[in-house]
Amino acid sequence: MAQELDVGTRAATAAFPDRLAEAVERKRTQIVVGLDPRVDLLPVELKGEAVLGRAEAGRAVARFCRGIVDAVAPYVVAVKLQIAFFEALGSDGIEALEDACAYAREAGLLVVADGKRGDIGSTARAYAAAYLEPREHRPPLADALTVNPYLGEDSVEPFLQACRLHAAGIFCLVRTSNAGASDIQDLTLSDGRPLWQHVAKLVTEWGEGLLGERGLSSVGAVVGATLPRAVGEARRAMPQAVFLLPGVGAQGATPADVARAFTSGPASALVNSSRSVIYAFRSSEADWRAAAAAEAARLAREVWLAAGW
Amino acid sequence: MAQELDVGTRAATAAFPDRLAEAVERKRTQIVVGLDPRVDLLPVELKGEAVLGRAEAGRAVARFCRGIVDAVAPYVVAVKLQIAFFEALGSDGIEALEDACAYAREAGLLVVADGKRGDIGSTARAYAAAYLEPREHRPPLADALTVNPYLGEDSVEPFLQACRLHAAGIFCLVRTSNAGASDIQDLTLSDGRPLWQHVAKLVTEWGEGLLGERGLSSVGAVVGATLPRAVGEARRAMPQAVFLLPGVGAQGATPADVARAFTSGPASALVNSSRSVIYAFRSSEADWRAAAAAEAARLAREVWLAAGW
Repeated sequence: MAQELDVGTRAATAAFPDRLAEAVERKRTQIVVGLDPRVDLLPVELKGEAVLGRAEAGRAVARFCRGIVDAVAPYVVAVKLQIAFFEALGSDGIEALEDACAYAREAGLLVVADGKRGDIGSTARAYAAAYLEPREHRPPLADALTVNPYLGEDSVEPFLQACRLHAAGIFCLVRTSNAGASDIQDLTLSDGRPLWQHVAKLVTEWGEGLLGERGLSSVGAVVGATLPRAVGEARRAMPQAVFLLPGVGAQGATPADVARAFTSGPASALVNSSRSVIYAFRSSEADWRAAAAAEAARLAREVWLAAGW
Repeated sequence: MAQELDVGTRAATAAFPDRLAEAVERKRTQIVVGLDPRVDLLPVELKGEAVLGRAEAGRAVARFCRGIVDAVAPYVVAVKLQIAFFEALGSDGIEALEDACAYAREAGLLVVADGKRGDIGSTARAYAAAYLEPREHRPPLADALTVNPYLGEDSVEPFLQACRLHAAGIFCLVRTSNAGASDIQDLTLSDGRPLWQHVAKLVTEWGEGLLGERGLSSVGAVVGATLPRAVGEARRAMPQAVFLLPGVGAQGATPADVARAFTSGPASALVNSSRSVIYAFRSSEADWRAAAAAEAARLAREVWLAAGW
């Protein structure tokens, strides 16, 4: 409860990167565990119920998320909820999402909603309200949201406003970890730069008015760990952004690949691992919670050492 | 009920653009009404309940959507649900979304889910499952989904798969209608083209294997009506794509501005209008349903004439 009170009290005042940095330094971990609950991959004790119907699946997913949160809380600073997997279960899934967000917050974790949202004007405002703003006297669902910038600055502005008014954070997609990222993000502009470098410049501009006390911005960037050279280039282009680095683990990147992301401080990058942690039990003899805890602890140590702080 | 049966029966066999073309020609309208339900803008008879709490707001939104569907069904081919406004009400909002989708389908309308989703691999698969695939013996929530292509071809592939297997449609964001669209979409590439023209080329490639009987593809494009010159250029770059054209009405474009979008057939473009239809009662003496019906009918006539078929 001390942790909960701490996070809860600071939420209204401290900027997202400052809350993050405090937690990273206190817990000595830069790990974010991704909650990507797929019904077909749940532990057998939960899957049996989940196949009965959508409401049962929603409840099983909520229990799975709670179990993972309990298991990994000592080793991670945040959980990242992949909204798609909850959305696939309709309103029952969204109930599970709300439950998991609240539960993670009570466990003292920061919450990142991974929705990659992006839309114009009043629609982007509605997404900001859905995830980053207090609702009916309850705290916001999440501390930060992933944002797709393809629609331009005015589509990002409502999220920047949530950063200003509600101490939220965002992570803009800059250079993602998938093979197809090159199709658009790596296109060469007329000045010779790849497109993602231009997006990185926009992210830096958007973040300039939103610096926390430690010089990190509320406007972060998603940079795939699978392209180590790009991680270094991205760091030079966005010195004040917190990086959210997917791709370590199941997608093949190693902690050493992301070391250069941490040059702006121990909390200047977060390493996200989803499947390799939450489904660790599938290649282990251990209980699903114990397997997730062990993998999160192992990853936290490795990344902390690689980051060099 | 004849209409419902018709749409239901064809859904399993006819490609999305063929179902669309049949409906456009039968009803002589290319209008899509956007359901963007904002609690603060609801008619007074619904707003009174909506302010009581989130569950009540969800029910009020569902009733608003049903009322609009009833009012505009004779004059439109589809409704486009702006998911953000439902998401902002959490699981109660998603229940309202599910209700509105089913109700619109029963009224014989096609359903476009406007989520601008885009993510990698298994996550994109989950979004496709959420919106475009049958669930628990029920039909898919929507006939088509808007998709953000910034993550590249592999992020779009799960949606293409839903087009192949479930006769779904998608509308990829190509050149949006907002002022900030120029920040990224209009960047000049090394070969002199704007970025959006490259995305248009990808959309054409993705759609080549997904042509319906009338030569229109299941892979459509969102092209803002607010830039008439771009509409013509987009048509030349994507001759087989169905265009979804936002921006007519509240955003300032006129039916004449979009005439050149229709050169590939009467169903080769859809004109979306949201606020100017569903909130027409706010600048009228009429009942909210009657005001929406009148505005949809007026717009349908104007666009049909401008399209010239």
